[in-house]
Amino acid sequence: MFAINGLYTDHYELTMAQGYFLSGRQTHTACFDYFFRINPFQGGYVVFAGLADLLEIIRNYHFSDENLVYLRSIDFKDGFIKYLENFRFRGDVYAPEEGEVVFPYEPVVRVEGNILETQVIETVLLNLLNFQSLIATKASRMRHSAGNRLLIDFGLRRAQGFGGIHASRAATIGGFDGTSNVLSASRYHLHSTGTMAHSWIQSYPDELESFRDFAGFYPERCVLLVDTYDTLKSGLPNAIKVAREMEEKGAKLEGIRLDSGDLGYLSKKAREILDANGLHYVKIFVSNQLDEYIIRSLINQNAPVDGFGVGTKLVTGVENAALDGVYKLSELNNTPQIKISDNLEKMTLPGKKNILRFYDENDMFYGDAIILAKETNIDEMYHPYQPLKSCSFENHRNELLLKKVMKDGEIQAPDKTTTEIADYVGKRLSKLPDEHKRFENPHIYKVGISRNLMELRNKLIENIKSKY
Amino acid sequence: MFAINGLYTDHYELTMAQGYFLSGRQTHTACFDYFFRINPFQGGYVVFAGLADLLEIIRNYHFSDENLVYLRSIDFKDGFIKYLENFRFRGDVYAPEEGEVVFPYEPVVRVEGNILETQVIETVLLNLLNFQSLIATKASRMRHSAGNRLLIDFGLRRAQGFGGIHASRAATIGGFDGTSNVLSASRYHLHSTGTMAHSWIQSYPDELESFRDFAGFYPERCVLLVDTYDTLKSGLPNAIKVAREMEEKGAKLEGIRLDSGDLGYLSKKAREILDANGLHYVKIFVSNQLDEYIIRSLINQNAPVDGFGVGTKLVTGVENAALDGVYKLSELNNTPQIKISDNLEKMTLPGKKNILRFYDENDMFYGDAIILAKETNIDEMYHPYQPLKSCSFENHRNELLLKKVMKDGEIQAPDKTTTEIADYVGKRLSKLPDEHKRFENPHIYKVGISRNLMELRNKLIENIKSKY
Repeated sequence: MFAINGLYTDHYELTMAQGYFLSGRQTHTACFDYFFRINPFQGGYVVFAGLADLLEIIRNYHFSDENLVYLRSIDFKDGFIKYLENFRFRGDVYAPEEGEVVFPYEPVVRVEGNILETQVIETVLLNLLNFQSLIATKASRMRHSAGNRLLIDFGLRRAQGFGGIHASRAATIGGFDGTSNVLSASRYHLHSTGTMAHSWIQSYPDELESFRDFAGFYPERCVLLVDTYDTLKSGLPNAIKVAREMEEKGAKLEGIRLDSGDLGYLSKKAREILDANGLHYVKIFVSNQLDEYIIRSLINQNAPVDGFGVGTKLVTGVENAALDGVYKLSELNNTPQIKISDNLEKMTLPGKKNILRFYDENDMFYGDAIILAKETNIDEMYHPYQPLKSCSFENHRNELLLKKVMKDGEIQAPDKTTTEIADYVGKRLSKLPDEHKRFENPHIYKVGISRNLMELRNKLIENIKSKY
Repeated sequence: MFAINGLYTDHYELTMAQGYFLSGRQTHTACFDYFFRINPFQGGYVVFAGLADLLEIIRNYHFSDENLVYLRSIDFKDGFIKYLENFRFRGDVYAPEEGEVVFPYEPVVRVEGNILETQVIETVLLNLLNFQSLIATKASRMRHSAGNRLLIDFGLRRAQGFGGIHASRAATIGGFDGTSNVLSASRYHLHSTGTMAHSWIQSYPDELESFRDFAGFYPERCVLLVDTYDTLKSGLPNAIKVAREMEEKGAKLEGIRLDSGDLGYLSKKAREILDANGLHYVKIFVSNQLDEYIIRSLINQNAPVDGFGVGTKLVTGVENAALDGVYKLSELNNTPQIKISDNLEKMTLPGKKNILRFYDENDMFYGDAIILAKETNIDEMYHPYQPLKSCSFENHRNELLLKKVMKDGEIQAPDKTTTEIADYVGKRLSKLPDEHKRFENPHIYKVGISRNLMELRNKLIENIKSKY
């Protein structure tokens, strides 16, 4: 019903593409970098996500006959439309493994190919990577708060329309255990889960009967929502009755869910009462406007919560609705390019680049250097905008982060399951020292540039300044 | 590639649906209300949007063979899966015209049908209406600031993944003139527009040449981006040269675009210089992190801006990423239902309801009464939670807002174009007194309930309280 095709782009990409075509420059080569400037959530890192979807979409990126009819109707020219008939993205893409931990100013994705194709995919690349990275990062913060407790995505109803499709995937990548979103679960092999809403209970003349029926239908995964009428006076006593009845049939009530009221107070009370009734095994799940801060607060209060259902603030990334990722030209016909700006931080880094990550003596992430792709190792790096600040490396182990994940339009990256990507995130975040994962004023991770890159940039700035 | 089907729902909707089926209650009738509790953006109203998409999606809502295989794999039972083979939504939907101005607590959409079908569509209804209403409302605020100036949606790259598809539609509904999003433009007959990015300019050895080529390819809609190197020293002088060259060929430069720097200062300077060169007709467009407040500020500074390109803050609804709409049971087998709560505002309103809108003596919106659907007129209404507050009506013209838009699963609502819906929004917002459209502490629009509804609610509360 909603095919993603060549029209999923900004109009100006096509206007420029037609311009490249009409000026006979469609075979000129270009290199673009995807990078962001600010960590979301005032946090210390970003979890890179969305790569597999991006590669799949750009591999299939094309213009259908219907698309071409539309483009003709809005005044694109016949010659260009003819060219688009056979449009395919046939470039190369370099990226870290999906799930990598990345930082501001790093050239996270590098796209090489002819200028027309590399330009046209700008919008879809930004659209997919910005959003999934935002949500995977948000999810990882909730996982950080929740420890090993269960985290379930309940967000589809509050997601930004079809944004919910990728939000649930990104939530799993960032560390969630499951999702209510059945479509995404089916598409991305996520763990799909859900039990009952208040309407189920209201559909019966009486709460007890509604619980009893549900337990009968779902003896193996019965979680009862206990706040429809009165949590402690009605919901909990009825849940306990049903738990006892289940025991007689050899089944076990999995848990109760609290969806309103003071979750700290109610979870403690509920635990006490369940335990007093010998129902130590019955778990307590909570939901209602949760985020990483409330989860942390509940745990700090020793609230006996076994799992959290998180909605709006996960799938929309409250308090940042977007990652500010951009896509900037860094080379043209093998000549490095730069965009200067009055604002230092908005100046781009020229040339084909890679990220070299250094480890400290405890095998933890120590700092990342942005280097020219032709460099293999360096022994010092410089602050991108304050050249007096530098940092040298001695026996630090290092690794290159960007690998070729698409070659001539064909996917080269290994096909990983969402769970494998999530495992990778966990592994990588465990290498990031705690002070960068702190919510409040996280320590800024060292990202520098190599001397060669700095010199190249300075030379280009001088060239431009001499012209204007 | 991304078909929206029966799996686009929360898992618990299907768990409950199977429960209704297994308990033999799938033919029981239910009525659900869609409503929200808080206006987004600390504003005074919401523009209701998303209806046409919702109706189309629920009319086609079904489970494919592949969907059923998936549901079987996650333990749904054979009998229920057999039932889903022929699942169609065959209920009735009542709603205002898409684009109506609505307020907190109003039953904006009423869904009637069997409990299984009305339950299953909950998630997709919330997902579509919450998001499009949020963005249409945001767009209307920007329109309020911009007056008659041009407003273009540039947001796709920062949209929440595929959320961008509906964001652009909702932006037009809320008052935008066009969008960069070609896919949505093609699907919803929006005005698609776009010119050049910095990469176009960088793709030439020199800015002037890049402008000249572009003007040659697009003499009728040439907007030049002037901030790549230096707005006043390079971009503007080059644009003026090209404008003169265009004049010689009988064409006219449409405008320039400023995308960085102080937009107030630069637009004034640019206007001055353009005018001094006799280029009064060349328009000035601006973009870069705009929202309704910055647009207002620029206009208050008399910045000579002809059009605004708005991205992130439009399509993601910064500073509220979600409208808090909910879907609550109000009747079961023709018996009114209520969900009580310790929190008064979270108590629901029972029964089938409608909204009666009253006009004042100037034919402006005066106040809305939530009434029982069987009521046709009332002469006073009460504050929903403070019964001592009431308001009476005398010669106030009134109208019922909810009409049947779907009957037995078939769409009854007239098929309006997005532009027609946008026109309706404009017409309706012109009926809303200015004080409700103010950004700062807007006057709260009167929404009350009829005496009959109040009495029904009070009776149900007493019934429940007597049981618990």
